[in-house]
Amino acid sequence: MSTHREELTAYTGAFVDELVKGGLTQAVISPGSRSTPLAMVMVAHPDLTVRMHVDERSAGFFALGLAKTTGKPTALLCTSGTAAANYAPAVVEARLARVPLVVLTSDRPHELRDVGAPQAIDQLGMYGSHAKWFAEMALPESSEPMLRYVRTMAARAVGTASVGPKGPVHLNFPFREPLVPDLQTPSLFKGGRRSGETGPYVTVSEGRRKPDGAEVDRLAAAFAGVERGLIVCGPQEDPSLGGALHRLAESLSWPVLADPLSQLRRGPHAADWILDSYDAFLRHPIVKEKAAPEAVIRFGAMPVSKPWMLFMKERPDCRQVVVDPDGGWREPTLSATEMIYADPALFAEELAGRVESLAPIRTGRWANAWRELDARTRKEMDAASRKVQGLFEGRVFTELAETMPEGSLLFAGNSMPIRDMDSFFLKGRQSVRTMANRGANGIDGVVSTALGAAAHHPRTVLVLGDLSFYHDLNGLLAAKMHRLDLTIIVVNNDGGGIFSFLPQAAELDKENFETLFGTPVDLDYAHAVHMYGGAFTRVASWEAFRSAFREGMEGEGLHVIEVPTSRNENAALHRQIWSEVHRSLDSWLAEVDFGWIGRSAE
Amino acid sequence: MSTHREELTAYTGAFVDELVKGGLTQAVISPGSRSTPLAMVMVAHPDLTVRMHVDERSAGFFALGLAKTTGKPTALLCTSGTAAANYAPAVVEARLARVPLVVLTSDRPHELRDVGAPQAIDQLGMYGSHAKWFAEMALPESSEPMLRYVRTMAARAVGTASVGPKGPVHLNFPFREPLVPDLQTPSLFKGGRRSGETGPYVTVSEGRRKPDGAEVDRLAAAFAGVERGLIVCGPQEDPSLGGALHRLAESLSWPVLADPLSQLRRGPHAADWILDSYDAFLRHPIVKEKAAPEAVIRFGAMPVSKPWMLFMKERPDCRQVVVDPDGGWREPTLSATEMIYADPALFAEELAGRVESLAPIRTGRWANAWRELDARTRKEMDAASRKVQGLFEGRVFTELAETMPEGSLLFAGNSMPIRDMDSFFLKGRQSVRTMANRGANGIDGVVSTALGAAAHHPRTVLVLGDLSFYHDLNGLLAAKMHRLDLTIIVVNNDGGGIFSFLPQAAELDKENFETLFGTPVDLDYAHAVHMYGGAFTRVASWEAFRSAFREGMEGEGLHVIEVPTSRNENAALHRQIWSEVHRSLDSWLAEVDFGWIGRSAE
Repeated sequence: MSTHREELTAYTGAFVDELVKGGLTQAVISPGSRSTPLAMVMVAHPDLTVRMHVDERSAGFFALGLAKTTGKPTALLCTSGTAAANYAPAVVEARLARVPLVVLTSDRPHELRDVGAPQAIDQLGMYGSHAKWFAEMALPESSEPMLRYVRTMAARAVGTASVGPKGPVHLNFPFREPLVPDLQTPSLFKGGRRSGETGPYVTVSEGRRKPDGAEVDRLAAAFAGVERGLIVCGPQEDPSLGGALHRLAESLSWPVLADPLSQLRRGPHAADWILDSYDAFLRHPIVKEKAAPEAVIRFGAMPVSKPWMLFMKERPDCRQVVVDPDGGWREPTLSATEMIYADPALFAEELAGRVESLAPIRTGRWANAWRELDARTRKEMDAASRKVQGLFEGRVFTELAETMPEGSLLFAGNSMPIRDMDSFFLKGRQSVRTMANRGANGIDGVVSTALGAAAHHPRTVLVLGDLSFYHDLNGLLAAKMHRLDLTIIVVNNDGGGIFSFLPQAAELDKENFETLFGTPVDLDYAHAVHMYGGAFTRVASWEAFRSAFREGMEGEGLHVIEVPTSRNENAALHRQIWSEVHRSLDSWLAEVDFGWIGRSAE
Repeated sequence: MSTHREELTAYTGAFVDELVKGGLTQAVISPGSRSTPLAMVMVAHPDLTVRMHVDERSAGFFALGLAKTTGKPTALLCTSGTAAANYAPAVVEARLARVPLVVLTSDRPHELRDVGAPQAIDQLGMYGSHAKWFAEMALPESSEPMLRYVRTMAARAVGTASVGPKGPVHLNFPFREPLVPDLQTPSLFKGGRRSGETGPYVTVSEGRRKPDGAEVDRLAAAFAGVERGLIVCGPQEDPSLGGALHRLAESLSWPVLADPLSQLRRGPHAADWILDSYDAFLRHPIVKEKAAPEAVIRFGAMPVSKPWMLFMKERPDCRQVVVDPDGGWREPTLSATEMIYADPALFAEELAGRVESLAPIRTGRWANAWRELDARTRKEMDAASRKVQGLFEGRVFTELAETMPEGSLLFAGNSMPIRDMDSFFLKGRQSVRTMANRGANGIDGVVSTALGAAAHHPRTVLVLGDLSFYHDLNGLLAAKMHRLDLTIIVVNNDGGGIFSFLPQAAELDKENFETLFGTPVDLDYAHAVHMYGGAFTRVASWEAFRSAFREGMEGEGLHVIEVPTSRNENAALHRQIWSEVHRSLDSWLAEVDFGWIGRSAE
């Protein structure tokens, strides 16, 4: 007969061991009592890196950042009660952004639930549809069948989080007191294994979805006849997609509109076929009129660019193929004609191969016009950004496009920064990994996500707005506790800058607008940064910015650079730049030939 | 045919107007775009007080604090996406603590859901069992039937949140662009009303549950024969309960164990029958042995005291009557014999009346022994707390027991402060309202809840630990934005002080214990307090504490007083005090007679 403590020890030991054997090597734990059995065993496991974080909301996003960067699941562990509710925002983001998380919540045992016991809340399925999988675990037992059960659940949790669509899974663990396992047990991590076995108890392997051959044939035949086609690549992380899309673009002579998070703008694939300035030129009325595509193949999540979305919404007759490896439906324009559930790189390669064999005839006018349009726009945007007197928000990315070092990671906050990244972080030779929380596009948790990324990726830089920075100031504790290196650029326009672009700004009187939307908080963030042991620099010029950025990248620890700007000026400057850029394109656009309309063979 | 804008305006106008007519006068809004229609109309309503808060998690708790203090529902409004997920912790607390909230989340319309549109997440029923009621609202329409619908939903939301058990309700509003209502519409708040009517469209009134007469008779007959009885009152807010319990205690000669949140320890009812020091003396082995009750009647939520819970758990044969006005099951000892679903004050009055008519015979030994035990313990606890050299955590409440002014509000953080409040905030003449987040007992959101309370209640004081303070530092923004007066006492033992009381502290080596449980964050909170425009004082003596406290209470705005303490010393001091107090009781306890065991008539 095993004692309670032996049961607790064997059960949690087997569980944690199998998590690690399944490939999970990172855990983020928040302090608490009910979580003691798992927490102690996790810290004791030699192959698991455990980081503590006191605020579970920040902890959730920190784990998300780690998982985004490594591509592998991160475990989260908290005590019972509202602690678990604080994970909700990160769970939502993980679900929509397809990031693998293994969320472990500790719970009171059944006899202490829904009876007014302290720190007992209903945790069963508490993340609703936002968790990819939920299971209520059995109470700890140490019989062989139950140790095999707990190993299976660990392997399944890691596996389910890791297969497409990746996402957050949630296991709820009831634990009875006493809660302290015996870490001296020699068989601590060995329970439930088959005799002589040292590897995983059960592995999970996932195949890539090979595209349907007949569908590829049909599409190739159709698209070989279409000159006016576009390839679009939204946010995605597959490093093999770049080469495949290059080949597909070449075969069809269709340009590739590459989102800032497509990983295509930077590095070896940022070649001729990659266009990056469409957010600006798709706003131009002549482009809207003359450059209508007849077919689009779209990869990745929905691009950041709102002009792109509107461009497609106005063209319901355009054939739109959407490729998703994970059977999702990321298509808000409601104009898709074909949903392709297949591995994107495989699909692009196979389609390219088939198109090559058909050797489509092209005039080159379509592709050349798009490429020249893009090149002209890029040059003008770059020049316009540099020409602004003072600290223009978009210029942050113009600067970073030059100075981000090879192999670095650029994380953009939501609201304005990601849009400015789209407009001003343009093609370049340095490979720079880009990242943002684009599942739910929240301004919350951004600091923590970037810190989670920085825990794995050297030379990480975060650009975010002041409200987003304020929202997750607590996240900075991780930088201090875990001695992380991160350079944060806070674009401080004292409030919600994006609202100045909305109709609300024109409709409301200044006072009501400032109250409801502007929400100036007027905080001197130097205080907070110093509290967390970081270096803070408020810059007044681009020279000072560059010098502070260099210091951040060369130094260790947390460096925060504040770029003070004005919300009103910023909206006006963006409008002025688009308008200048559009004017510079007017005469060229009036003349340029975008080629055939209708099937090229006709 | 109405335009989109007319529909939006009439629909949101009628909704907000009916919220206000239903008695909801406070709203907390977080900035966002999708919430524009409701936000603009709310700000325009003359009888609604709107406060902005950027961090939705803090906003949720701020609204909770307002609702706890006023007893009336507060509205929360946010944009779509993770914003809504940030309300989860406050929604959980509101549900378990029975606090009325009307949570309004803005959403994308149906055609933009689950298709990868930005800031679109699954918000339908997203708080699960933690919301008392959820409804997905119709898209805005301005037909008379739909304006009557939207008024009915507003009235129902306020009504459902307000009737027992009070709690959070959730309405999800899909809004299509454009999002700006026309505030100039003369009939803005008038749509959907009956002709000539100016009051609410529909009112919700709730009766009090009158106790079942036969049950009262049976209990009175039974308890008239029981000398060894106790009345227990946990956290509750009904001001009429004090008088009723006093009469019941008198009629039965049963003492009342009064939780620090029972509102019975302070003011006119803090008379002879009220005992407040049981948390200390119920740990004494002789008390456990000699003072076993035969019957208990318990009111309110479960008391804070763990010794009380263990005392009951060890006495399954003791008859335990649990009174709950709202049909809940707040009884974790699993030893209740009768659940009484009736208004507590009515039940106490009726039972007292019936017992009085039976004129039970009492020796007085039981009641006298308990009262003397309590008086002795109180005196010793008070003296022991004052005797400690240096800054003992419990002494904060010993000091406050003397200095909290009449009509003030004392809010206690969870973990150690609420336990110290139980032990050291003892009976006194000054009426002091007490409050804590005891639904889920989280350390999160405490700063914001207290600020929400301070927005309504003058002279509010918050005592909380440093980790809890850190967890909700963002909440301090409300103090700055809304110029609130609050004195915060941060008991800073640099980490999780309560864990030093747990077995984990003895089991783990110091390093692992500090990593997992102690979690020292080593933050100088002066930085954060100054950032939010508050005054910060770190005290080194009780003289300095008293002077800082006086400044806080007399001054305006945010005052933070840090009391630096040591976790290890604190646990040792608590143990030492209990042991000293127990020793002082030993000889008296050995002699004292707790009276008859068994029915007094036998």
